[in-house]
Amino acid sequence: MQDSRKAWSGRFNEPVSDLVKRYTASVGFDKRMAEVDIQGSLAHATMLQRAGVLTEDELRAIQSGMADILDEIRHGTFEWSLDLEDVHMNIERRLTQKIGDAGKRLHTGRSRNDQVATDIRLYLRGAIDVLIGLVHELQISLLELAEKHAATVMPGFTHLQVAQPVTFGHHMLAYVEMLGRDAERFADARRRVNRLPLGSAALAGTTFPVDRAYTAELLNFEGVCENSLDAVSDRDFAIEFTAAAALTMTHLSRLSEELVLWMSPRFGFIDIADRFCTGSSIMPQKKNPDVPELVRGKTGRVNGHLVALLTLMKGQPLAYNKDNQEDKEPLFDTVDTLTDTLRIYADMMRGVTVKPDAMAQAVKQGYATATDLADYLVKKGLPFRDAHEAVALAVRYAEEKRRDLSELQLVELQSFSPLIEADIAEVLTAEGSIAARDHIGGTAPDQVRLQISRWRQRLGV
Amino acid sequence: MQDSRKAWSGRFNEPVSDLVKRYTASVGFDKRMAEVDIQGSLAHATMLQRAGVLTEDELRAIQSGMADILDEIRHGTFEWSLDLEDVHMNIERRLTQKIGDAGKRLHTGRSRNDQVATDIRLYLRGAIDVLIGLVHELQISLLELAEKHAATVMPGFTHLQVAQPVTFGHHMLAYVEMLGRDAERFADARRRVNRLPLGSAALAGTTFPVDRAYTAELLNFEGVCENSLDAVSDRDFAIEFTAAAALTMTHLSRLSEELVLWMSPRFGFIDIADRFCTGSSIMPQKKNPDVPELVRGKTGRVNGHLVALLTLMKGQPLAYNKDNQEDKEPLFDTVDTLTDTLRIYADMMRGVTVKPDAMAQAVKQGYATATDLADYLVKKGLPFRDAHEAVALAVRYAEEKRRDLSELQLVELQSFSPLIEADIAEVLTAEGSIAARDHIGGTAPDQVRLQISRWRQRLGV
Amino acid sequence: MQDSRKAWSGRFNEPVSDLVKRYTASVGFDKRMAEVDIQGSLAHATMLQRAGVLTEDELRAIQSGMADILDEIRHGTFEWSLDLEDVHMNIERRLTQKIGDAGKRLHTGRSRNDQVATDIRLYLRGAIDVLIGLVHELQISLLELAEKHAATVMPGFTHLQVAQPVTFGHHMLAYVEMLGRDAERFADARRRVNRLPLGSAALAGTTFPVDRAYTAELLNFEGVCENSLDAVSDRDFAIEFTAAAALTMTHLSRLSEELVLWMSPRFGFIDIADRFCTGSSIMPQKKNPDVPELVRGKTGRVNGHLVALLTLMKGQPLAYNKDNQEDKEPLFDTVDTLTDTLRIYADMMRGVTVKPDAMAQAVKQGYATATDLADYLVKKGLPFRDAHEAVALAVRYAEEKRRDLSELQLVELQSFSPLIEADIAEVLTAEGSIAARDHIGGTAPDQVRLQISRWRQRLGV
Amino acid sequence: MQDSRKAWSGRFNEPVSDLVKRYTASVGFDKRMAEVDIQGSLAHATMLQRAGVLTEDELRAIQSGMADILDEIRHGTFEWSLDLEDVHMNIERRLTQKIGDAGKRLHTGRSRNDQVATDIRLYLRGAIDVLIGLVHELQISLLELAEKHAATVMPGFTHLQVAQPVTFGHHMLAYVEMLGRDAERFADARRRVNRLPLGSAALAGTTFPVDRAYTAELLNFEGVCENSLDAVSDRDFAIEFTAAAALTMTHLSRLSEELVLWMSPRFGFIDIADRFCTGSSIMPQKKNPDVPELVRGKTGRVNGHLVALLTLMKGQPLAYNKDNQEDKEPLFDTVDTLTDTLRIYADMMRGVTVKPDAMAQAVKQGYATATDLADYLVKKGLPFRDAHEAVALAVRYAEEKRRDLSELQLVELQSFSPLIEADIAEVLTAEGSIAARDHIGGTAPDQVRLQISRWRQRLGV
Repeated sequence: MQDSRKAWSGRFNEPVSDLVKRYTASVGFDKRMAEVDIQGSLAHATMLQRAGVLTEDELRAIQSGMADILDEIRHGTFEWSLDLEDVHMNIERRLTQKIGDAGKRLHTGRSRNDQVATDIRLYLRGAIDVLIGLVHELQISLLELAEKHAATVMPGFTHLQVAQPVTFGHHMLAYVEMLGRDAERFADARRRVNRLPLGSAALAGTTFPVDRAYTAELLNFEGVCENSLDAVSDRDFAIEFTAAAALTMTHLSRLSEELVLWMSPRFGFIDIADRFCTGSSIMPQKKNPDVPELVRGKTGRVNGHLVALLTLMKGQPLAYNKDNQEDKEPLFDTVDTLTDTLRIYADMMRGVTVKPDAMAQAVKQGYATATDLADYLVKKGLPFRDAHEAVALAVRYAEEKRRDLSELQLVELQSFSPLIEADIAEVLTAEGSIAARDHIGGTAPDQVRLQISRWRQRLGV
Repeated sequence: MQDSRKAWSGRFNEPVSDLVKRYTASVGFDKRMAEVDIQGSLAHATMLQRAGVLTEDELRAIQSGMADILDEIRHGTFEWSLDLEDVHMNIERRLTQKIGDAGKRLHTGRSRNDQVATDIRLYLRGAIDVLIGLVHELQISLLELAEKHAATVMPGFTHLQVAQPVTFGHHMLAYVEMLGRDAERFADARRRVNRLPLGSAALAGTTFPVDRAYTAELLNFEGVCENSLDAVSDRDFAIEFTAAAALTMTHLSRLSEELVLWMSPRFGFIDIADRFCTGSSIMPQKKNPDVPELVRGKTGRVNGHLVALLTLMKGQPLAYNKDNQEDKEPLFDTVDTLTDTLRIYADMMRGVTVKPDAMAQAVKQGYATATDLADYLVKKGLPFRDAHEAVALAVRYAEEKRRDLSELQLVELQSFSPLIEADIAEVLTAEGSIAARDHIGGTAPDQVRLQISRWRQRLGV
Repeated sequence: MQDSRKAWSGRFNEPVSDLVKRYTASVGFDKRMAEVDIQGSLAHATMLQRAGVLTEDELRAIQSGMADILDEIRHGTFEWSLDLEDVHMNIERRLTQKIGDAGKRLHTGRSRNDQVATDIRLYLRGAIDVLIGLVHELQISLLELAEKHAATVMPGFTHLQVAQPVTFGHHMLAYVEMLGRDAERFADARRRVNRLPLGSAALAGTTFPVDRAYTAELLNFEGVCENSLDAVSDRDFAIEFTAAAALTMTHLSRLSEELVLWMSPRFGFIDIADRFCTGSSIMPQKKNPDVPELVRGKTGRVNGHLVALLTLMKGQPLAYNKDNQEDKEPLFDTVDTLTDTLRIYADMMRGVTVKPDAMAQAVKQGYATATDLADYLVKKGLPFRDAHEAVALAVRYAEEKRRDLSELQLVELQSFSPLIEADIAEVLTAEGSIAARDHIGGTAPDQVRLQISRWRQRLGV
Repeated sequence: MQDSRKAWSGRFNEPVSDLVKRYTASVGFDKRMAEVDIQGSLAHATMLQRAGVLTEDELRAIQSGMADILDEIRHGTFEWSLDLEDVHMNIERRLTQKIGDAGKRLHTGRSRNDQVATDIRLYLRGAIDVLIGLVHELQISLLELAEKHAATVMPGFTHLQVAQPVTFGHHMLAYVEMLGRDAERFADARRRVNRLPLGSAALAGTTFPVDRAYTAELLNFEGVCENSLDAVSDRDFAIEFTAAAALTMTHLSRLSEELVLWMSPRFGFIDIADRFCTGSSIMPQKKNPDVPELVRGKTGRVNGHLVALLTLMKGQPLAYNKDNQEDKEPLFDTVDTLTDTLRIYADMMRGVTVKPDAMAQAVKQGYATATDLADYLVKKGLPFRDAHEAVALAVRYAEEKRRDLSELQLVELQSFSPLIEADIAEVLTAEGSIAARDHIGGTAPDQVRLQISRWRQRLGV
């Protein structure tokens, strides 16, 4: 019995050493796939019975045994053994303990190679569904904030220099767009995840009369993997998913950077509720935006996992190699990181207090309406490049006087172009500037509100 | 005039230093976007004219000036100037030289921020279309090889140990599947590339009455970017594309690894035509598979570009920052690397000579039909795990005798299980093993041929 | 008390949410630094006492309290609390429970920012010392193998084509060289790790009369970090160490690739002891080289951690930001991965059985001595390039005849150059070829043995 | 002649295709190694002559031919040919054209494998020497700025929240420290670069009586590579160098982030001279800190190259494979990027204008001296944790009153602790706070000046 604990024992002269056992075992991390492993086994057994490979009694025994095992796992009483290497052997061994020979027949027509590929896909499909939901939740959270501040003026920056006035709502919608693409990407990846490898067996298919389409149907897969060598060795889905996750984290790293900036006293544009911040062990006055900082840092983590997975697959000959076992930890940690981050972010954005006064104040530093002045001149007939040059000189003058353009006298402005008239006053205010950008994608409050309602419709909220 | 060479000059006290000019200029690499830049400008001008911002005469002047410039560029007579920083200013300045004020009016209602974003998207859309075509060409090349060798037996490996017999055609089809997913991924990415940023101007939209939907229509975009801040700073498309490219290169690195292995005298499974190989400056006998080796190496290059782009965008506040200029070189080099690699690969696979004898010989080393023996016992009623154990002992015995399973006497086989009968002979041949895996995705020659015809239909060849 | 559980509580209006607590807490992974945290605290306290900030009684109380805590930790009875965020607060809180006010005084003149930086450095210094020892152990294991096979002939490959004969001992020594550089790199990194940040406090130094040199001496640091802002935010050491680790893993990935190749029946050059291999759940004949495959895969893991750390630090303003907390998991996992891998590898190389016959057989396929023939001609007066050309034609001829160069008749050889004489026979054997490369770094058995003895001397074994 | 254009031609049936030629040729980028290639060849020839392999006449011919070629290259008249693949064959062919047979004899006892490895090392050694010089120049530039602002008060940030006052000089010195480690790392890497591979020939050493130590001496190498298989395939030096470069870029990305922040009107701490900035094509008021933004972006570029190189070497079997040719472009671009960046940075820091008033103003927002108050209480006998709590409540109170701690009445302060006395006033000023951190590494102006003089001594300036 000692010997036969391993799936392959008969051929070997000596047992695996303890260090090797620990180094090669995956049960420490792959047991999180226990439920989908059982789900896959039940579908496989159902198909085998219909194909005449298992009897009805055997199927029923397997079903009842698996139900017990699921119970044990959920109640934490299942005993995981490192000796049994992975989640698959742990469950199969327990099944055989419970129901005898029928358990030993379950592995007919499959191999761990196609079994684990099926498990990861089932697991990842579920994770993607949760993540898309969380992306939408965060979008909704941002839409609420955008709605409230559809007309709240703030300086729009490029190069962190004041560029033109925008609204805070418009700014929030930029992230709603990014997240919209993220959700699309996850949905695209899901289609490629949602194919059944089972039936590929070790690498070449099986000699048993499997009905792969039926198994796929039982497990809600959209189709089967159509080449067995590819099916057991393919980890594209893990890479594609992690790349999509890295992009989502990158977007959140950008929002995080902004939250950190805005919460700095140098900006003072927002406050984040205390429950998302921590203090200092030494500086009693500190309130630190820990959450966005950590999110920014965790971007590296996911980028790293992507590199790990790409490096892993580089240059691997067909078909399955043990290297592939290294796919799970980066994938699982990516799922966990992104899930936690999205969840906390949706909540945190509801704890953001916007400070419109500080934003309005900041709009006045940096000549945010210089472009409006140039556009004004163009509309009066000046070619754009000449208008640009005239305004550049006006800004230089205003800077020397330490005044905003709106604070210059009409006569002073006119010294840069005789085309300037009294109607310029309105043009040089932040509100005038914003209202004038009134087209799809523009920052005019009406456009912001239209875009919010388009998104509400898309998200069904 | 000295001063006014720069687009922003009026406000500055001193010119940019030469080292800075060189460091910040992009014209050295972004001039490859010259044609799409002109294409975008023409659409913008057409829209501006319809919107009443340009006159018909101005539009005609712009069109005729741009036609001349395109000519100069194509004939290599266009003089690119580092002083003018980038492709956009070089072309606009030339246009103004040619047609005067109308040229200066072209930049009305846009900024370089949305202009460059539009250019990259036009460029990348075209590149993706070429790449999808090249992926299909390589698939066709592989299908031809697969068809020729639908029944050519070779050892299938897992862990580089002989696992089970497969056909060379089946093996080639594994790569056809991978490439199929690659093409899907590029098509998915294309949808997100194919949105128009133009009209977002610097970051907030424009005060001119732009009709963005019309510009999009003129340029065959599927829609417009719906948030101006996002539109000018978004580089998702570059990252998503490069991630898809990294996956394609990873697939080709795997095939390359196999070609290198198979061409080694230790395998001797194939030969690659001389025109894809090089020799040694010192060892007169050498014929080296340089192309697959380089492809394997270039995988790192594309992985590196992906990391470069992700690092670039991490933590960037909205909207446009100069960091973004660093998006182009990795993107362009990814396109070039992948284009060249796919092109050369489609050609090279037609120069592969398969050596069926060597493959057949190799199938006999490694007990490739052991699983067939186990399956045989299961069909005779033994539970799979018990059958596995019996065969393991038989293999151990055969290994000690230095014989293949098919070379054991019936009576020797029966000592491991009394269920074994004379019909075992057929089961233990490679041909019998292959033919028995007769289901979708399996290695049976009939299945391989079916799959080839499904792919021919999909590809329309 | 509820409130005061946190280090910074007085300033906050609401407690941190549970999800935030979990997201921001590090105690789950940083508790592995408990012993070095205590070590650092004791040195700090000793210095504070000498500086007159703590009384002798307070110091004694801290020492005795810490001894108890260390005991609890070692016996697994210490209760780690997520509410207390990290290892530092957990230990300090427990100390205060035990000894009262003296515990509260311990944090005088320091901050968690310099405390954690000190802890990681102490931890990493210890890890590096272990790793250098393990690198040396693996080198010794390889030297043993090299010694045994100093004259065992095998084909040397370039491009996986047979190039020239080498000895297996020489081949093993290549890895001894690589590992030698690895150990050097770790030693170099250690010098930069081994500097004391403590005394930098939060970011600006402290108002207490600290004696940093004395603390450094107590903790065996070679010096102090000479700028407080740098000291609390620097994570160079983690990146430099991880880069060195990635190189070591890369070297082992190369050896792993070779072990996998050599153990494939296509090569059959070696066998790896059963205790380092596993079998298949479906294919009874399989014996898979799992360990080298996993090592190859884990290379990606360490590369990924390197990217994570570099991404983490990119663009961070001074001084400490919470992002930095993300340094620990990649660093710890790199240490663990490398430690386990080196340990298992030293052991596994002792379980490698070399098959000299298979190697000798393989040397005969691929015209391994063609260069020797060319060199022979050069020594007879032909310019190298002409000799190369003559031999290339001879190889082409031999290939058509399906014979090795050593199997050609003298007269046949002479048809390619009249300079060839009877003494050519010796030159064309593998043994002759090897013996002739008799200079430092060359593959001649005597050179291999000399190099082994040089290494034995360096390693003191 | 047609045939003999290639180094290996005799054995091949068909010429390499044009696409393959372009794909595999390296002369486009490796010609930058022309001078070191010639330098290496001359040393090799000198050694060969002393070893009796070349005659004195042949050596003289080679020397004179190479002098001519060097001249052609420097004058741009050398004709590089893609057909000749690489820099080595181009130069050798030209030499043979010029001097006949002696040119053909030059390649005796070496191969392109050891030749290219020697060239890269010579090239990189030179590049490292330049880079260390540039690092020092930037340090000097920072020291000048630090000296001028040794006592200029600014807010020190952690988490981008105001933490404690520091001096701008102290802040600059943090980067001097980082760069100091960078220079150390380059020097360490240089030792491993500076070993001679030549004499390893293709992979196994050579049959000619080479004197490798003599060649090493001629080329100023510190030693020879002691294993030929390792010598021709090792690219550690490229990886180690690029990792060191990535760290340097990471440091500069941090300084860049700060320059961008400080130049934003939200901070207004500095101005950067116009010659390092650019404007906007649309917004006339803009002055953008392009250079630091680009530096920040280029960090990704170097990180990407590091990943490319690590991926390249992963899993490569010994000895040389063509993959290795992909080492050059990432390495060269890393050298170029870092060289340009350091040069421009040293210059740019001299163009930074510091605005002490804005910094002083900012110190007053954020309770920068709260820690000083806590330290004050500790010195009066309160345990640190209790002092921290008292000050936290004081800050909360002051925040509600919208006043700084220094603006509270003594009696108000005393309501938080009766230990507070009149001498608190001095403690709560920024100047008092800074002066009190008077130990090595601390921000006290005297310490800053001491550290500057230590650095001046180290750098010899």
